[in-house]
Amino acid sequence: MAKNDLKVLGAWPSPYVMRARIALNIKSLDYEFFEETFGSKSELLLESNPVHKKIPVLIHGDKPICESLIIVEYIDEVWASGPSILPSHPYDRATARFWASYIDEKWFPALKGIAAAQGEEARKAAIEQVAEGLALLEDAFQKTSKGRDFFSGDKIGYLDIAFGCFLGWLRVTEKMNGIKFLDETKTPGLAKWAHKFCADAAVKDVMPETEKLAEVAKIIVAKLRGAGAPPK
Amino acid sequence: MAKNDLKVLGAWPSPYVMRARIALNIKSLDYEFFEETFGSKSELLLESNPVHKKIPVLIHGDKPICESLIIVEYIDEVWASGPSILPSHPYDRATARFWASYIDEKWFPALKGIAAAQGEEARKAAIEQVAEGLALLEDAFQKTSKGRDFFSGDKIGYLDIAFGCFLGWLRVTEKMNGIKFLDETKTPGLAKWAHKFCADAAVKDVMPETEKLAEVAKIIVAKLRGAGAPPK
Repeated sequence: MAKNDLKVLGAWPSPYVMRARIALNIKSLDYEFFEETFGSKSELLLESNPVHKKIPVLIHGDKPICESLIIVEYIDEVWASGPSILPSHPYDRATARFWASYIDEKWFPALKGIAAAQGEEARKAAIEQVAEGLALLEDAFQKTSKGRDFFSGDKIGYLDIAFGCFLGWLRVTEKMNGIKFLDETKTPGLAKWAHKFCADAAVKDVMPETEKLAEVAKIIVAKLRGAGAPPK
Repeated sequence: MAKNDLKVLGAWPSPYVMRARIALNIKSLDYEFFEETFGSKSELLLESNPVHKKIPVLIHGDKPICESLIIVEYIDEVWASGPSILPSHPYDRATARFWASYIDEKWFPALKGIAAAQGEEARKAAIEQVAEGLALLEDAFQKTSKGRDFFSGDKIGYLDIAFGCFLGWLRVTEKMNGIKFLDETKTPGLAKWAHKFCADAAVKDVMPETEKLAEVAKIIVAKLRGAGAPPK
């Protein structure tokens, strides 16, 4: 049994699972990692998250906590004496939560939309939508980082985790489409931030290699295209 | 200028706007209410929420805060000396956030699905989905309220607000479909809870009358059905 009796049910390619693991790393917490098999769900997962049946689940003692951003807040609140994950000021917290929600509800669905797009025109429109989202996030970064390395200061925090967990998938999308989303001209702040984020001690061991992730992406893209194919 | 310089941009039929107003009422905070006109967006709204252009927006001094549940958390954190809205224990907070997210992502979309359903079979399936969600929420209520009036104790809090704001729309849906979702047999806990919630001092003045809301519903349903009508 780990010191804090913490288990994470997850899978290495999942950006949402990465959020929980980064938060645990920031607080220097040991945990057991249970890798779910792609395409099936363990008994423990079905018992722990009967409503959504989705990873990640953090199990603390005998208590399951579901939904990645809720897990991050939980870890920050329970181990409050460790480095802070949420900003300390309520307005900064609201701003971080706002952008995290934007990323989950708008930006990442747009990124997935590139892979699912049917035809060149739809693909280009999806790419444009992702780039517009990145312009908003660049602006948010400039405003909240105020020249520091991360969204809310000198250390990675809530919004860094919420957004940074998608960097592997962003790189895979860049590679598969022969484009560059983050560069020093269009998104100078985010380009620098991405390097710092991936090199961070809490992140580097859980950020998947782009090559390895691209293999998973090929399987998912084939599924997405198959499901969305127009009837003949 | 109100004592705390608080403005709410909203519209009376919006359940999301109600969340912000209930939270302000719990903390006994005065605010100016700016009613947005149905079908158009004020300059102040477009300036304050340029990303989503949606109500509610809370403007505190010169700072806009967007997204209803983020506003509720902001109010709870800034006026921390007033009655607490979020539960105090991290696990209870995670549980409340989990169900609030379930309501927004699954349950309320299902409720809207009843009005948008094309044909009797689709309508019945949507009703069944809403009832299944209510069974989950009844179970959650029994577990977290532990015999008390509200989801996390003797006073209304975060999850009560997140769910309770939809009671007006639930009643309208019951009325329009000749069904009863909340009753003493299927959902004894929630049926009692709904009465207590609507009678609460922080709620009663912002909960719209079912008749008045039904008028708005007719306009929205006509729109929904029009948009989703199968091609002839």
